[in-house]
Amino acid sequence: MDNRPIGIFDSGLGGLTAVRELHSLLPREEIVYFGDTGRVPYGTRSPETIRKYAQQDIAFLLSKHVKMVLAACGTVSSLADTFRHTVPVPFTGVVEPASRAAAQATRNRRVGVIATTATIRSHCYRQTLQRLDPAIQVVEQDCPLFVPLVENGFLDPGDPIPYMTAQRYLRPLQESGIDTLILGCTHYPLLRPILADIMGAGVALIDSGQETASFTSMLLQQEGLLCGEERDGTCSFFVSDRVEGFSQAARLFLGGEADPRVQYVDLDSFGKETTGCLEEIPCPKN
Amino acid sequence: MDNRPIGIFDSGLGGLTAVRELHSLLPREEIVYFGDTGRVPYGTRSPETIRKYAQQDIAFLLSKHVKMVLAACGTVSSLADTFRHTVPVPFTGVVEPASRAAAQATRNRRVGVIATTATIRSHCYRQTLQRLDPAIQVVEQDCPLFVPLVENGFLDPGDPIPYMTAQRYLRPLQESGIDTLILGCTHYPLLRPILADIMGAGVALIDSGQETASFTSMLLQQEGLLCGEERDGTCSFFVSDRVEGFSQAARLFLGGEADPRVQYVDLDSFGKETTGCLEEIPCPKN
Repeated sequence: MDNRPIGIFDSGLGGLTAVRELHSLLPREEIVYFGDTGRVPYGTRSPETIRKYAQQDIAFLLSKHVKMVLAACGTVSSLADTFRHTVPVPFTGVVEPASRAAAQATRNRRVGVIATTATIRSHCYRQTLQRLDPAIQVVEQDCPLFVPLVENGFLDPGDPIPYMTAQRYLRPLQESGIDTLILGCTHYPLLRPILADIMGAGVALIDSGQETASFTSMLLQQEGLLCGEERDGTCSFFVSDRVEGFSQAARLFLGGEADPRVQYVDLDSFGKETTGCLEEIPCPKN
Repeated sequence: MDNRPIGIFDSGLGGLTAVRELHSLLPREEIVYFGDTGRVPYGTRSPETIRKYAQQDIAFLLSKHVKMVLAACGTVSSLADTFRHTVPVPFTGVVEPASRAAAQATRNRRVGVIATTATIRSHCYRQTLQRLDPAIQVVEQDCPLFVPLVENGFLDPGDPIPYMTAQRYLRPLQESGIDTLILGCTHYPLLRPILADIMGAGVALIDSGQETASFTSMLLQQEGLLCGEERDGTCSFFVSDRVEGFSQAARLFLGGEADPRVQYVDLDSFGKETTGCLEEIPCPKN
């Protein structure tokens, strides 16, 4: 038993899809979320820059005494093998859980992956899928406009701007005959109605944030690290930029009438200054 | 006479439109350009974050012994009044030069401004235009998807995705009867064919980067700070992220067959480490 919080981070808002799922699976757990909104997006940056940012994000979560770290960011996860040995608590990214789910879901062994440019360039999904089943053919496509579209609220399935952008990015995947598509960035579930409409009912969509939340739940159970107290789990949200913008947009991701209260953290100085008490607030209901 | 270089910075690529113009006006001058590609975009961030980033960018340029600093970024310029007193060399943003040009161009005293969310929220263009001429009516519109569209190459006037996005953002400006439109972000000139087509021939488009280059040229002349040597001016480019991505995209902004050689700089450590020699290369020809 371990009553310490679970740490989750992302470049911005996307990881909140994993927060929502994890809270639903493990309602007693405390969650500390860090969204690096001061430096979003990660997906167009170099591996060196992404690794540096990820290590700072993890250092912040460790300062909150978390028992586990979940990188709810496809871009960071794509590089996780190069720094996971430096994390002193159990750690997971989204690539392995999403790839496992896709390998189980596919019938024709043709799996598509959509993600940020950095993630696609790393070929991490291809490598993981082919390690799980060498017969799987993987079709990869980066979609660099999806994160800005989502972060700016261009989500409506009836809106031709996100719809046509998705059509253009997905065309090679449609033509390749895949039956399973990994949404390899935790922002993409917000475009799910559009993606499902374009790909059709014959293609299973795998939500990397959701699969990673299930995997985390299983891992904590296996390791005997679940919270031992009867309590309502709380979520604490920290961001590296404007608190107002985050609260508003977070509602889209967390669903319902949630009004997440959020604190600003200056990554350049958090290690040197005393941080205030966490505001503990009930997690949004699913 | 002053043979030191001119420093120009932007959050990313946009400021290169000002580099091109300035080199054309003052071909003898050395230019040091810093693009903060590791932290682009600035326009969706908070004033505190933008100010912090701008001050780091300026500190880097000062380490290169520049005689003047040009903030070729609409977002940074919108906050310039809060930190210009800390810059120990002549300094200009883009707001004042673009506003002066617009105030001269308008006939019906209705001026539109398009820019990033942070710039529009600051109302800096409205305040400057109304200081220049209190009778000017100002219509402001933020266009948060324009920077990601430009940075990802969605520029073709025949492409419905940037065209429809621009149509949506510009509709209120079309309805307001403006005769002059300030492109208040240095990325936007790359969308000029689309913007001109939507607004029509009756609306003058004011390019903030171009106007600021003219203003800088005039200022250096007035202050006696022009280069005194007969030489071909060189441009040195520094970025805070992937050098390859920048070189490729920079050709779009600089025009022609330019192949800008670029160096990476780690803003966290540049002050502590010895920086190497500048690679001096001829500026691209206009």
